[in-house]
Amino acid sequence: MIKVQVVLSPALLHLFDSKNKNVVVIDILRATSTICTAIAHGALSVKPVNNTDDALILKGSGYLSAAERDGHKLEGFDMGNSPFECMNGAVLGKKIALTTTNGTKCITAATIAGAANVLSGSFLNITALANFLKADSRDVILFCAGWRDRVNLEDSLFAGALVNRLVSKDELDCDSALMVMDLYHRAKSNLGLYLEQSSHYKRLSRLHHQEDMEYCLQSDVIDIVVGLKKGEMVNMA
Amino acid sequence: MIKVQVVLSPALLHLFDSKNKNVVVIDILRATSTICTAIAHGALSVKPVNNTDDALILKGSGYLSAAERDGHKLEGFDMGNSPFECMNGAVLGKKIALTTTNGTKCITAATIAGAANVLSGSFLNITALANFLKADSRDVILFCAGWRDRVNLEDSLFAGALVNRLVSKDELDCDSALMVMDLYHRAKSNLGLYLEQSSHYKRLSRLHHQEDMEYCLQSDVIDIVVGLKKGEMVNMA
Repeated sequence: MIKVQVVLSPALLHLFDSKNKNVVVIDILRATSTICTAIAHGALSVKPVNNTDDALILKGSGYLSAAERDGHKLEGFDMGNSPFECMNGAVLGKKIALTTTNGTKCITAATIAGAANVLSGSFLNITALANFLKADSRDVILFCAGWRDRVNLEDSLFAGALVNRLVSKDELDCDSALMVMDLYHRAKSNLGLYLEQSSHYKRLSRLHHQEDMEYCLQSDVIDIVVGLKKGEMVNMA
Repeated sequence: MIKVQVVLSPALLHLFDSKNKNVVVIDILRATSTICTAIAHGALSVKPVNNTDDALILKGSGYLSAAERDGHKLEGFDMGNSPFECMNGAVLGKKIALTTTNGTKCITAATIAGAANVLSGSFLNITALANFLKADSRDVILFCAGWRDRVNLEDSLFAGALVNRLVSKDELDCDSALMVMDLYHRAKSNLGLYLEQSSHYKRLSRLHHQEDMEYCLQSDVIDIVVGLKKGEMVNMA
């Protein structure tokens, strides 16, 4: 039986033992959805970097530079943090250096915490990811990126969807996992409608990212698993 | 309209501005339920203290000393952290110095954070508490004590029950508040059965505190509001 625990905020990661576990980083709107999309659309890798300077330095080494803060694409970079920027051949055969408000920092934090694998969580490839986790059989930490350390609805909801695919309720010994599983059951009939309440959904709506959000809430349009190898997110196959 | 926010763990309190707000400390199993019970049963006050030494020093000044760690009553103290120890005249006219694993620390933290009022949350007096908060009309922080900084089910659920009494869903701009409100709606038909899943319920069951838990999950058996005045929890009337 796989032990599954849920970390609802980066400020709580230190309470959990991530060593030698599969850690799934979850930033549904939009970093980890965009990373999965980039790799599915032929990018060689996405390197998470913690600041814009590092992204620009890597641009000098042939990477596409991608930077987002507070929902905005930053000036002077090749891309922001929208999955649609990864389509139509735009990233085919390219390496990307990405920095975002929440998600990319969590990939670094999970690495430092000693995870066996750091994986990118998204509804887009949830079945492929669940199958990978079940086959690998290591214990699992679902690590919600949240919003500036606050708990958010969309990452919690995805954690619930994934818990639901991995274990039954009576196998859980983590209250956060129980909570998000129940949230998911409450919301699953219409995730989009449910998430219209969330603070980040409202924030991105004001910034006209409606199309991004609708895309990110689709299940199983991607059939690969994306995880960290040598500091870059790649196809785990 | 009252703005209501929910802090799911003490490790997240610093992300919220508690200044001049009504902060409700929530440690349902059992500290804040026991504090309400003590005052309802005639204790003059309950002074939250952060360590056992302070409780023993106050014992020398005529306080009843009460100490609990990890669900156990500590040796050498007058009381542990069970609401039943406060009944049948045991605390009538007495002052109590209480230290517990989670709850009493949170009362101190809310005070340091600048709360206008630090109130004790419990199902036992939820209607009286909700009426106080609505009449006072300051913004509200519902502060879940959790378990050693981890999010727990019972405190989250109570936060949801109280949010539900204070505002409607479309008035919320806090994802944690939305989450706990939905949890509450899922669990409300049988709180006891729902909480049998929780890790602390299981922990206290192993320690034979079943009766305490059944007591703490009753609604509206107490009609007073308990909050901090001059460093001691007292009847706010």
